[in-house]
Amino acid sequence: MKRIAILGSTGSIGQSALSIVDAQPGRLQVVGLAAGENAELFAAQIVRYHPHVVAMATSAAIDRLADALPANVTMAGTGRDGLVAVASHPDAELVLCASAGTDALEAVLAAIELGKTIALANKEILVMAGGIVTEAARRRGVAILPVDSEHNAIHQCLHGRSAAELKRLILTASGGPFRGRPSSDLSAVSTEDALQHPTWRMGRKITIDSATLMNKGLEVIEAHWLFGVRADQIDVVIHPQSVVHSMVELVDGSLIAQLGITDMRLPIQYAFSYPERWAGPMASLDLVGAGRLEFHAPDTETFPCLRLAYRALEAARSLPVVLNAANEIAVALFLDRRLGFTAIPQVIESTMNAHRPAEVATLAAVREVDSWAREYAQEFARAVELKVPMRS
Amino acid sequence: MKRIAILGSTGSIGQSALSIVDAQPGRLQVVGLAAGENAELFAAQIVRYHPHVVAMATSAAIDRLADALPANVTMAGTGRDGLVAVASHPDAELVLCASAGTDALEAVLAAIELGKTIALANKEILVMAGGIVTEAARRRGVAILPVDSEHNAIHQCLHGRSAAELKRLILTASGGPFRGRPSSDLSAVSTEDALQHPTWRMGRKITIDSATLMNKGLEVIEAHWLFGVRADQIDVVIHPQSVVHSMVELVDGSLIAQLGITDMRLPIQYAFSYPERWAGPMASLDLVGAGRLEFHAPDTETFPCLRLAYRALEAARSLPVVLNAANEIAVALFLDRRLGFTAIPQVIESTMNAHRPAEVATLAAVREVDSWAREYAQEFARAVELKVPMRS
Repeated sequence: MKRIAILGSTGSIGQSALSIVDAQPGRLQVVGLAAGENAELFAAQIVRYHPHVVAMATSAAIDRLADALPANVTMAGTGRDGLVAVASHPDAELVLCASAGTDALEAVLAAIELGKTIALANKEILVMAGGIVTEAARRRGVAILPVDSEHNAIHQCLHGRSAAELKRLILTASGGPFRGRPSSDLSAVSTEDALQHPTWRMGRKITIDSATLMNKGLEVIEAHWLFGVRADQIDVVIHPQSVVHSMVELVDGSLIAQLGITDMRLPIQYAFSYPERWAGPMASLDLVGAGRLEFHAPDTETFPCLRLAYRALEAARSLPVVLNAANEIAVALFLDRRLGFTAIPQVIESTMNAHRPAEVATLAAVREVDSWAREYAQEFARAVELKVPMRS
Repeated sequence: MKRIAILGSTGSIGQSALSIVDAQPGRLQVVGLAAGENAELFAAQIVRYHPHVVAMATSAAIDRLADALPANVTMAGTGRDGLVAVASHPDAELVLCASAGTDALEAVLAAIELGKTIALANKEILVMAGGIVTEAARRRGVAILPVDSEHNAIHQCLHGRSAAELKRLILTASGGPFRGRPSSDLSAVSTEDALQHPTWRMGRKITIDSATLMNKGLEVIEAHWLFGVRADQIDVVIHPQSVVHSMVELVDGSLIAQLGITDMRLPIQYAFSYPERWAGPMASLDLVGAGRLEFHAPDTETFPCLRLAYRALEAARSLPVVLNAANEIAVALFLDRRLGFTAIPQVIESTMNAHRPAEVATLAAVREVDSWAREYAQEFARAVELKVPMRS
């Protein structure tokens, strides 16, 4: 029995993770769960998986949980402290970080310091604090197993190959719902349009990031930290069918690719079972039925977010923090119908331009830059908002 | 410096192998060479690579070599004995078996008994005597590194993964020049038509085997022996672009694929460098330029050879020997314009039907079945020949 804690258990990844627990009886024990605001679903999860420790985002959410909390389950608290408590619980061997945004950063670091394996489904954490997190993991000899389908694919392709064998990584991208649309079309797209992802069913934030290609940009930065490669060793290729989940090119020109159905249970189970591999509930890929596989160069003129992410990675230091914070603000405003789709990269680029890059060697420094960038982005967006009203 | 011997140095694979020696100065030393009849090219190779030991197929060929043989190079002999002498030379650490047909069977076994690594570009040897060869390699702890692009791809995809992780192998096939043509069209195809392979430049025998799909059938049998999987764990998929060289499906449904340009120098260099991987002279794959990748089910009605190979593998024992021998005869007659294209599987199937499967635990037993099958196939083909004249 591998003893796991899940941060973000009521989200899309969290629910898939619990379905793997169900599908693998006797293999996984849920010892900790943390959720955001969805008290109803969280109560059902607590009853079903009887974790030892739980946490929720807010006191209001805990109040809604009320009598559904059994007496023998510890409520560890709210916010970042609650996440830290669940991730640090002595019973947990592996912590799946599947909460959105950067709230779980301290929790992931705490788990690493305690020598726990990290299954990382959240890309913002490495974008913000990749140097701090990967250095801590190296020092403590802790494995960070990527759950993002692309990085999970690369982990499978590398399979212990040495850095000396690696030439470059090739991240595949579906291209999102607006692939092939001209730039002029995009100012008028609605939140609903942007939430229609062609191949993957995911949370709202990541679905918008897929539509802007920022999701791929964040993945480029994440790949840099996970696999120790430079920006110029990471390529992105548009692959609308999402059958090839990503690839590595080795020094002799040979490519190794991982393919599969678009089902997040596959990378989640891989992270849970690693270094073993378990037969599971997932269907085989029907390659003949999948039809033609296509590969195109990304259009960074129409989708500037990918270009901005490369710029942030190349400049390094605090610029990725700014990119990520400004993006979170812009996407939240877009989801709230207060910002147009094409204004998202404008907000990010303006925030990056206004920032003077600095070293960010501590979490405090990261959080400071993050706060500044959020505030700047919010203010800039308000100005844009007045100029570019959202289509209702 | 890795010290290598090459059996079949004047053939297509042999020449590519020597180009890798050129491209990797200081890494490979040629200590032995064996060739068939091409004395002119062989003389040039001897002068350029100064091997310690050489052999040719016949005395007549050696006579043509004449003065081109330097005094300090040992001429080891002709035929199978010559191949055994080159493969057994104490200076060779790795023997690349790139000679066509089954003549090198004894040489490969001799090298294995001496603990030398085998790079195997010849599939007939495992089809004929896979049990004997792989058992000897296991006993002596010798690695057999496949050079066939498909099996080399699978070797790269597995990369040390345990048998417990493996669900099935998926061999890709270009489909050959007659893919999609109706059965009725094929009786009239000429030798020249069949020699036009769409994606790979190879020797004549293997090019015809690709056109009949027997090449893939032989690969299915070879994969069984190389990777220890059953016939029902080996699938074939038609992939006309030959970009994906083969794949493995793991127990969780994840697929790992190897992709690359269609250049045999890639798997040859891999076998030479293994367990390292060297930067080399080969171009990177341009995935965007490669266009669409397609995958279809094979048509075993129109191309019965693939079905016959599965039947031989499932029946096991001596039937693969019969399949291979009858195929060699039929292809030679086709290349000689003495047999029609669609008569090739007829000759093979009739020979298989006439054979009573027996155990073949020794080389002598293998050679006996082989001789019987060749004789039977030759006689049967003569009868077919009278009925189905070849288009001139």
